[in-house]
Amino acid sequence: MHATLSEGVVRAGRQAREQFYDARGYGRTDGEDIVLAPVEAAHLLFRGDLDSVDDMDFRAFLASATCPDLHFLVYKDLRDRGFYLSPAREDWVDDPAGADLVVYPRGKGPWDDEVAYRVRVVSERATVSADDLGDVVLAVVDEESEITYLDTDRPDVSGTTNYEPPAGVTGDLLDDRVLLWDPPADLFQHGFYGQPLSGDGEEGSIDTLQLSLVEAAYLVRHGVLDIDGGEQAVLQCGREVEGDRFDRRLRVYAALRERGVVPKTGYKFGADFRTYADVESVANLTHSELLVRVLPDEHAFAPRDLALDVRLSGGVRKRMVFALTGGDGHISWLEAGRLTP
Amino acid sequence: MHATLSEGVVRAGRQAREQFYDARGYGRTDGEDIVLAPVEAAHLLFRGDLDSVDDMDFRAFLASATCPDLHFLVYKDLRDRGFYLSPAREDWVDDPAGADLVVYPRGKGPWDDEVAYRVRVVSERATVSADDLGDVVLAVVDEESEITYLDTDRPDVSGTTNYEPPAGVTGDLLDDRVLLWDPPADLFQHGFYGQPLSGDGEEGSIDTLQLSLVEAAYLVRHGVLDIDGGEQAVLQCGREVEGDRFDRRLRVYAALRERGVVPKTGYKFGADFRTYADVESVANLTHSELLVRVLPDEHAFAPRDLALDVRLSGGVRKRMVFALTGGDGHISWLEAGRLTP
Repeated sequence: MHATLSEGVVRAGRQAREQFYDARGYGRTDGEDIVLAPVEAAHLLFRGDLDSVDDMDFRAFLASATCPDLHFLVYKDLRDRGFYLSPAREDWVDDPAGADLVVYPRGKGPWDDEVAYRVRVVSERATVSADDLGDVVLAVVDEESEITYLDTDRPDVSGTTNYEPPAGVTGDLLDDRVLLWDPPADLFQHGFYGQPLSGDGEEGSIDTLQLSLVEAAYLVRHGVLDIDGGEQAVLQCGREVEGDRFDRRLRVYAALRERGVVPKTGYKFGADFRTYADVESVANLTHSELLVRVLPDEHAFAPRDLALDVRLSGGVRKRMVFALTGGDGHISWLEAGRLTP
Repeated sequence: MHATLSEGVVRAGRQAREQFYDARGYGRTDGEDIVLAPVEAAHLLFRGDLDSVDDMDFRAFLASATCPDLHFLVYKDLRDRGFYLSPAREDWVDDPAGADLVVYPRGKGPWDDEVAYRVRVVSERATVSADDLGDVVLAVVDEESEITYLDTDRPDVSGTTNYEPPAGVTGDLLDDRVLLWDPPADLFQHGFYGQPLSGDGEEGSIDTLQLSLVEAAYLVRHGVLDIDGGEQAVLQCGREVEGDRFDRRLRVYAALRERGVVPKTGYKFGADFRTYADVESVANLTHSELLVRVLPDEHAFAPRDLALDVRLSGGVRKRMVFALTGGDGHISWLEAGRLTP
């Protein structure tokens, strides 16, 4: 069977319509005929269902750059997995913005009303702006043409931790932390602020509690902790090493605390924070649920780094969340996770 | 027992010398007396072995900034693990450059001639220049004052793969890859170049082989592959998305191939390449040994990212190697791995 290319789409007659659209969900109808997007035509050429498009065979059609090769690879992979799908063209699907392909639930097709995934196709080699994520599945094609699917979402980050630290705590600011001497034991045991200098501190009193600079800055700002030089001294100490990053992390730390979530360092997982949604006491701590990485909201992700974060968070059974901080103080939350369609 | 601080060191008399140096490896002798580095004095104050230094107790001594708090935490941790160790001061130890602490093998001390680890202390929050790594153990103190040890090394990267691809292969350059039609099957099956478009290609002929742009650029440069536009067309295509990074990756790809090591994409592990040291045939492929991340040689590592790479590579039983590319074409190899002292 042969088809023709005009104005960026491939056209074929009634037999093609029956065979491709009615039976297998390719293209859109145009009266008695069928209109195919280039990626669909490429797939039909690859399978041998179409013999040529304007005298081009599969090789010539791909080489003609009519169809991006990445789109073809993802389209083929999703077809191989048993899905019907459509290119996200204006007038072909609802809400095409930000997506390249719209995938229907298994057993459904373009004539139904349901969508399983909105897919954006991206090369391992390119970067993806954080703005473009949150309501699409990222199909990352690696250099060897293998495809990894990353689902992205805008999660609600909140918890039920409810602890009000007492005022009147004092501490010494050192190079990189604040030491509290004979602090209220609750500050650690219920609030999960700091880390005892020795021993596990889960019972009885605590001799010396070490606070991170972020924890200290938060507690000074909230009138709990007094330190020589006040909030400015802690901020200055934090910014000395980290610059603006310290302020971004502090902002996210405060936002998490205000949502009832306890952030602790995520260093061991390569993140800024790991978080606990419901701390009643440190002695009965549950598994931490989220890994949080703090980034400026104009950040562009290298798919390689995104894959690394997602892979590691999956390996430790936590959800990977990015806190994207804007210049105006706004924080938006972005989640990424592995998807097997 | 009391001691005095002068010119950056802490001094005490004969009894201290016997108790601290002779019995437990603190400080250096100075005639009948002992000279202690501030971090050693801080540890003795913390333990209550020293009562004061110039009337300062442990709290006052730490707050006086005589001793960096990070150094104290690492010193204490290594003592807790049963090691004797010395600050890496000029005249105290051989080869102090780049290290903060020198750790003796268990059961040995400063009066012996052996060194187990040279340790550099760094905050989770600071960055570490690649230049400073390769012959030290990095002790990273996280915000909660927990310590992770990362060993760094300058590995010999080499393998025994020995395959000469035939000349006269042709291909089509697409957006992001090169397609070879009816290529010599050996190119994939023995050389492990590319990835078949469909099927596993491990037996018999291959209809279509997909090469990454890096593979294609390498094969064009070596006179194996002919493509319209030649090497420049491939380079241009690679640089379009990646800029200089493409050239760095290509240089490392070529260096690995020339050392008998086969690089394939490391995307799934968040790296640039995974490598196989000894490929005889793809059908009998062994486990890949290294994950390679390509970085400019002036790169400064965030300990968080380093920990992430090391953790993931350990999880998949591969060694993490950084290929540091210099402006002059030189590549130096840096390995990082988790260490439990």
